[in-house]
Amino acid sequence: MKRLDTRDADFETAFAGLLSGREEQGQEVNKPVADILASIRKDGDSALCALTQRFDHLPVTPQTLAFGPEEIAQARAQVAPDLLDALDVAARRIEAFHKAQIPSDMRYTDDVGMTLGMRWIPLDAVGLYVPGGKAAYPSSVLMNAIPAKVAGVGRLAMCVPTPSGVINPLVLAAAERAGVSEIYRVGGAQAVGAMAYGTATIRPVDRIVGPGNAYVAEAKRQVFGHVGIDSIAGPSDVVVIADSKSDPRVIALDLLAQAEHDELAQATLITPDAGFADAVIAAVEAELHVLSRASIAGASWRSTGAVLIVRDLNEAVSLANHLAPEHLELMVDDPEALFAQVRHAGAAFLGRFCPEAVGDYVGGPNHVLPTSRTARFASGLSVYDFLKRTTFLSGGPEALRQIGPAAVALAHAEGLEAHALSISARLDALDAQAATPANG
Amino acid sequence: MKRLDTRDADFETAFAGLLSGREEQGQEVNKPVADILASIRKDGDSALCALTQRFDHLPVTPQTLAFGPEEIAQARAQVAPDLLDALDVAARRIEAFHKAQIPSDMRYTDDVGMTLGMRWIPLDAVGLYVPGGKAAYPSSVLMNAIPAKVAGVGRLAMCVPTPSGVINPLVLAAAERAGVSEIYRVGGAQAVGAMAYGTATIRPVDRIVGPGNAYVAEAKRQVFGHVGIDSIAGPSDVVVIADSKSDPRVIALDLLAQAEHDELAQATLITPDAGFADAVIAAVEAELHVLSRASIAGASWRSTGAVLIVRDLNEAVSLANHLAPEHLELMVDDPEALFAQVRHAGAAFLGRFCPEAVGDYVGGPNHVLPTSRTARFASGLSVYDFLKRTTFLSGGPEALRQIGPAAVALAHAEGLEAHALSISARLDALDAQAATPANG
Repeated sequence: MKRLDTRDADFETAFAGLLSGREEQGQEVNKPVADILASIRKDGDSALCALTQRFDHLPVTPQTLAFGPEEIAQARAQVAPDLLDALDVAARRIEAFHKAQIPSDMRYTDDVGMTLGMRWIPLDAVGLYVPGGKAAYPSSVLMNAIPAKVAGVGRLAMCVPTPSGVINPLVLAAAERAGVSEIYRVGGAQAVGAMAYGTATIRPVDRIVGPGNAYVAEAKRQVFGHVGIDSIAGPSDVVVIADSKSDPRVIALDLLAQAEHDELAQATLITPDAGFADAVIAAVEAELHVLSRASIAGASWRSTGAVLIVRDLNEAVSLANHLAPEHLELMVDDPEALFAQVRHAGAAFLGRFCPEAVGDYVGGPNHVLPTSRTARFASGLSVYDFLKRTTFLSGGPEALRQIGPAAVALAHAEGLEAHALSISARLDALDAQAATPANG
Repeated sequence: MKRLDTRDADFETAFAGLLSGREEQGQEVNKPVADILASIRKDGDSALCALTQRFDHLPVTPQTLAFGPEEIAQARAQVAPDLLDALDVAARRIEAFHKAQIPSDMRYTDDVGMTLGMRWIPLDAVGLYVPGGKAAYPSSVLMNAIPAKVAGVGRLAMCVPTPSGVINPLVLAAAERAGVSEIYRVGGAQAVGAMAYGTATIRPVDRIVGPGNAYVAEAKRQVFGHVGIDSIAGPSDVVVIADSKSDPRVIALDLLAQAEHDELAQATLITPDAGFADAVIAAVEAELHVLSRASIAGASWRSTGAVLIVRDLNEAVSLANHLAPEHLELMVDDPEALFAQVRHAGAAFLGRFCPEAVGDYVGGPNHVLPTSRTARFASGLSVYDFLKRTTFLSGGPEALRQIGPAAVALAHAEGLEAHALSISARLDALDAQAATPANG
């Protein structure tokens, strides 16, 4: 954990180190991933089954790649009713938020009489990658699948590895609740390859979303262009801006909720009160003695945790904008005033009773958010990821007469004669028509 | 050129061949591009200057990397006034369309009293790549830069290679008109690296857009994640749906306007009239005897051109959806009715007097569009490429009481104890407060 004060002489250097440490660090898995993708592309199902045997120790055939409806119903029956209720609270709120996101088509007629605009159209098919083992989070299934369903995507295929056959029943229940249409027990780069290129059993999709390990991330990067992908997810992070009126233990828990994700997760407190900062640091240490995931959270806190002491809350927001956090908590009296100054953050949580953990599950906005400072240019998952736009332009002879000549001039300047002719031939035809007497 | 009829016995096979031929074909330039990027990252300006000398045969120093205001003014003075006027017609129409695209922020308060929504925020800095030499299209400068300016991006840096020092004055005039703030005479993977990672002279940007050769495309792919990129552009393509009432020569010119871009460009006619199809094929051949870019257009037409004869216009749209074209012309009596059935196309051009060439220059919608069948999941360039969303969630004690317990249940199910505690500690505090008498 680094404790920095903006009044320290070496603050700028130390803060720059903090920033660069948060950039994406790629693992060198180019070659093995390329080999796996080539093998899927060449041998389809047989490669997929062989790789699943090899990496997940699971014997599988093309016939058993997909989970059957009975398996899914059985999984659902294993889940406690209160958990299914909680899943439903989450699903309903996520649905409501993403419905509110749906954009409207645009259309207008301009001064030369052209009608132009754009239509939003859902993707035909989407692939959802869900990590297996401990990282199999049912909440992520909801967050990835529901926006696609709300956007109107017809087909939603999901791949989840089941190491040695182990599956989290709540993941299947979440997939069913979210409207996933096909679920396959495969993972890794081979699952990404199967969804991108298709096999005899798994039809190809148009876009692949969902988190995964370094192999999955690299596979998504390599199939990008052939299909769409979401952002490459790095370690999760939070910046908590808090004044001294918050309970130090509560703020410590917010930081640890981030740190417990994995050893690379990044939790940062920014506060104008040095005494409060120390109280939070002490509370973190105290909680690290009792938390079940203390070894993970402790490793994260020690290596990437940061406490920044600032002159005032405005300086706090300015630093947060530099950090471009995935999650930003504003635990202050007037969070809206601070939020108005925020330029770079995936998602913001406003007010002392609105911690990030609420947003991770039941807030409504998506919890798949830009990591590794990519909030500078990227956004959280949304219905926009599952829609695309077709623009259109419609015009008759009069509009062509007015704006055609400018296009002809530019086409000639670019040396594209056929471009110019495709317009001027139409203008010539109009001129010839006009020159012909009506009764001629 | 392939002439296929949907009533042919082998149509499905032949059409499938057409589809797979249109997928992106990557060149193997991974390694040289990775080396160039590593060199820029390590040595900054000195690597950039050395690589510019090597690839563009241009001696350049950090001091002469940028075009000065006088150079830009001189370039502008070299451009014919009518061409500057045409540029202005194009710029104004592109501005108007992209202003109409600007989305609204979203905000609502729900039944548990939470206020949630999302804000659109422009990127701080964008890099625009412009190819040099013959492919230096001023129209592309407008199409890439104007949406960024309209979105509110503060800093817009442009890189354009100037092989042996040669620059197209109209490109500089277009950059100035579009509001580009910095222009550098560098190109290739080294330019992409400089914009992504920054050098002493070129500050890093947050997103890089613009077309380029295989090296530029691969460089964008490799810096993706560190910065945002636009889609990787493949060969340009058009599908023209035309009935027999169109002039065959005009339709032939529309096809050739696509084919003249480069040898890999793809032009396809779909028509229900076999006689009209043959008349267009004949007109293409006739024009290929007179066009200035006949060798390029002819090579494209012979290798990738296609004429598909269909039963009716509905079948024509169905095939077009499979082809997911970058450009779709609907040269028929009632184009709106056909357009309603279009699911996959970058941009549509409706009506006999609205050819694609109008949209390439002065239509208003963007001409940077998804190629290689990526219209299945991708969209044309727009203000959305230069904005990102920050979602927000705001709630008080009452909202937390209502939805907090569901989040706690899900956090426990996912084994994330600190997540659960960050909510339950707040709920406990509320309970303790409620249990304390008001005057206690």
